[in-house]
Amino acid sequence: MTIFDIFEPIGIFVFAISGAITAVKKHMDIIGVFILASVTALGGGVLRDVIMDRGIPAAFSNYDYYVLILLAVIFISTVGPSLRWPWALTVFDAIGLAVFTVDAGIKAIDMNLNLLAFLFMSVITGVGGGVLRDMLSKEVPVIFRREIYALAALVGAICLWVFTPLINEAAAAYLSVTVILVIRLLAVYYKLDLPRIIN
Amino acid sequence: MTIFDIFEPIGIFVFAISGAITAVKKHMDIIGVFILASVTALGGGVLRDVIMDRGIPAAFSNYDYYVLILLAVIFISTVGPSLRWPWALTVFDAIGLAVFTVDAGIKAIDMNLNLLAFLFMSVITGVGGGVLRDMLSKEVPVIFRREIYALAALVGAICLWVFTPLINEAAAAYLSVTVILVIRLLAVYYKLDLPRIIN
Amino acid sequence: MTIFDIFEPIGIFVFAISGAITAVKKHMDIIGVFILASVTALGGGVLRDVIMDRGIPAAFSNYDYYVLILLAVIFISTVGPSLRWPWALTVFDAIGLAVFTVDAGIKAIDMNLNLLAFLFMSVITGVGGGVLRDMLSKEVPVIFRREIYALAALVGAICLWVFTPLINEAAAAYLSVTVILVIRLLAVYYKLDLPRIIN
Repeated sequence: MTIFDIFEPIGIFVFAISGAITAVKKHMDIIGVFILASVTALGGGVLRDVIMDRGIPAAFSNYDYYVLILLAVIFISTVGPSLRWPWALTVFDAIGLAVFTVDAGIKAIDMNLNLLAFLFMSVITGVGGGVLRDMLSKEVPVIFRREIYALAALVGAICLWVFTPLINEAAAAYLSVTVILVIRLLAVYYKLDLPRIIN
Repeated sequence: MTIFDIFEPIGIFVFAISGAITAVKKHMDIIGVFILASVTALGGGVLRDVIMDRGIPAAFSNYDYYVLILLAVIFISTVGPSLRWPWALTVFDAIGLAVFTVDAGIKAIDMNLNLLAFLFMSVITGVGGGVLRDMLSKEVPVIFRREIYALAALVGAICLWVFTPLINEAAAAYLSVTVILVIRLLAVYYKLDLPRIIN
Repeated sequence: MTIFDIFEPIGIFVFAISGAITAVKKHMDIIGVFILASVTALGGGVLRDVIMDRGIPAAFSNYDYYVLILLAVIFISTVGPSLRWPWALTVFDAIGLAVFTVDAGIKAIDMNLNLLAFLFMSVITGVGGGVLRDMLSKEVPVIFRREIYALAALVGAICLWVFTPLINEAAAAYLSVTVILVIRLLAVYYKLDLPRIIN
């Protein structure tokens, strides 16, 4: 069992949940919930495959992904009212951001990309699903909101790049996931805010 | 004369009309009307070609498409005030949804794709133009509005997949177009609404 | 030194500035400013490479681009309050539109594309960055606002197509850049407006 077999399903499941929560909040019907969950869960990877010219995205031939998305939608339908728990969206989104960034980062290292292309591939995959979710539901994209988001993915990706040659790949991956999660959740909790240019 | 020679021009013409109506409603100038008509008419196919990695989209080398789009814009300029007829946008959009879904579905069957990739290719092509039109004109994307939309395309695509091996391709195609049109128009007329998850 | 060595950096720098100005106006933090500046500066070219199926976009392996974008962000941070100068966004955006349209046009001519594909490749590259910038910052895309925009790029591209075989390439390029700049700036200054279809 490789690290992809753990990270990819987790990322798809939690991002599907973040998409489903957003769709329910916007009063979309059940098909809308399923579509927004799918776009959030698969969007980052499709965007990455399209931009990096990697052929037909895996999302279009792997039935397992849709089982996971369906489970996420059923989960959200069942726990319904607890969605009002204000942290749910943030936490699921943060887990998705962390595992997708690192998952794509490992693939990029295996492809022998240079640092710049490596950073792009991991950060686009990590933030892409959330940005598509927000654009389709007419929210301000999460990368442009107040708290640290893309920067957390960037720091985690750099961490993966630095530590993979030093310790083993799996350890570097878990370390980087933790770094992204901690930065993102602390940033939301303490409303950490990057400096702004005075207009 | 193949079925593509009938479906493709119809789809381009009616989607161009739906884009032109939207642009006129948003008070765009004549170039804006032409651009939004083109994006709506060609967007689904370009999105499909880009995501399915099919090379340079046909939209960029076929002059006939632009003659059709120009005719659609002229048609809308001429009938101007009757645009207020509230059903015009819905009907033209539904015809486009139906013929583009089935047209792409036939191409996907010819490419020997599996069921999942087949469904993606047909539904993305069917709904893509309308989604791009709505995102560019700051409307809530049609797939997330109340009445059945993507589901109609999905049912029609499954219908095409099931009936193509049983009856001949052209008959299956016309049947599927009818199924999509009937589902979509009945859904709008009777305000049929899918169930919603209680928040 | 080819014409690309002059046009590409200028286009990236001025579009990065237009993205940074927009981000500052929207009160984004410093990472948001850098992301929106990058998307605006590189988005048109990435969109072009993805749609024209040209492989991994150059944006992902060229560090120089990010130095230019960083310089643009530093420039905007330094001149801060003068951003209120209402013409800054329009002028930088117009220069980017002009040089990117012509830069991509020259590449399209070198690729021996037909007229239609040539026009697409140059106009998409010219307007793409600005459209992505506006969609991500929830503005009405610049191509759909009142004053002549896409038409300026189109006229400039046709000008390049006509004059390149007649005079030398560099002269045709400078002529076309001037044509786009003059049309766009006169259109904004005199509020030139294309006709509209009466609704």
